Amino acid sequence: MNPVEIIQLKETILEDNDGDARVLRQALREEKTFYVNVMSSPGSGKTSMILQTIARLREFYRIGVMEADIDSAVDAERVAASGVPAIQLHTGGMCHLDADMSRQGLREIDSRALDLVILENVGNLVCPAEFDAGASLDVAILSVPEGDDKPLKYPLMFQRCSAVLINKIDAMPVFDFDLEKAKEYIHMRNPQAVIFPVSAKTGEGMDAWCRWLKEQADGWNHGGKQR
Amino acid sequence: MNPVEIIQLKETILEDNDGDARVLRQALREEKTFYVNVMSSPGSGKTSMILQTIARLREFYRIGVMEADIDSAVDAERVAASGVPAIQLHTGGMCHLDADMSRQGLREIDSRALDLVILENVGNLVCPAEFDAGASLDVAILSVPEGDDKPLKYPLMFQRCSAVLINKIDAMPVFDFDLEKAKEYIHMRNPQAVIFPVSAKTGEGMDAWCRWLKEQADGWNHGGKQR
Repeated sequence: MNPVEIIQLKETILEDNDGDARVLRQALREEKTFYVNVMSSPGSGKTSMILQTIARLREFYRIGVMEADIDSAVDAERVAASGVPAIQLHTGGMCHLDADMSRQGLREIDSRALDLVILENVGNLVCPAEFDAGASLDVAILSVPEGDDKPLKYPLMFQRCSAVLINKIDAMPVFDFDLEKAKEYIHMRNPQAVIFPVSAKTGEGMDAWCRWLKEQADGWNHGGKQR
Repeated sequence: MNPVEIIQLKETILEDNDGDARVLRQALREEKTFYVNVMSSPGSGKTSMILQTIARLREFYRIGVMEADIDSAVDAERVAASGVPAIQLHTGGMCHLDADMSRQGLREIDSRALDLVILENVGNLVCPAEFDAGASLDVAILSVPEGDDKPLKYPLMFQRCSAVLINKIDAMPVFDFDLEKAKEYIHMRNPQAVIFPVSAKTGEGMDAWCRWLKEQADGWNHGGKQR
């Protein structure tokens, strides 16, 4: 396998990240690039979910993936193996991405030539929620082995995400996870959150998620760019 | 159940956390309190592991537990139900504890009257590793559903912990987790790390972990305080 490109992100100098994120979001809207920021704990299945999403949406969109990690390039290599452009962003130890770091990645992956760019943020339920990455859509994954009480402990993540995927539902028989309670806790933080129980391993529930995602992307892109 | 005490931590003013952590560690040594800092991703089983540890070591030590979270008191309530003193620390949105925040908690739980204090740090594989909490021992938990590649992506956590518990080994048949690879990756980050495969659910492996922990605590406490 060809080694994927690894981008060393520079620390942001701008102080007003919220303002910068708004500028980036507007630029992406004009460019007709739908930019999805995927956040979760380490190991809750972000990469597998992205691969399932690519398989279902690649016939409609030109997709690119940015994998953010403190070290290693294992995720970007997995995505690149699917044939979709993928780059690895190294945060230099930092626990999150902000809008300017998004911009550095989007430039490298050349978002202007893509319809849909997916960012796999650093695995962390706390810090990425505090920094608007300038995305068109913020999505959280909560996996069954983590437990149904996570929205109680990590409020901001569930507050700011428009959609929450409850992943690894195939492992439900092995874990003491109450799906209805999880939904209730998520809606306690964010009554508008759209919730998708899925298994990125078996593919269960992924069609419903991708249908919804496509609606959001079409609304943003107005059917994509002129090719 | 009586509601547990919730302590709102104050943000630290001190700039030299490393120096402050050394001071705290030395004070705890003189006080003969063994202070264990447990770190991991959200939902990897910190609370269950602590409950299993309490069950095995409560005959030897007076144990107290500090549960750190951004919100909720569910973990402290679980621990308090075991009959051991437990307090809930709220970090005010912060993603980690530093030495001075440790000190605030230790004062509230009255560490001088205890032999062993366990801190359950905020669930986060990134930030808590960057802040020396002044503990006698730093421990990480990596759970099977998170995947064996986590030491590649989150180097500092595995570098600085003396022991790593690989938890949820009862779920191994359901997940694609290579135990030997996980050990190899942990040792790549820290050749001295002592590794314990455990299940905090079934209790498997917990005896070996608690035997080792008791050795560390006895070495520190010299058999505990005069009661």
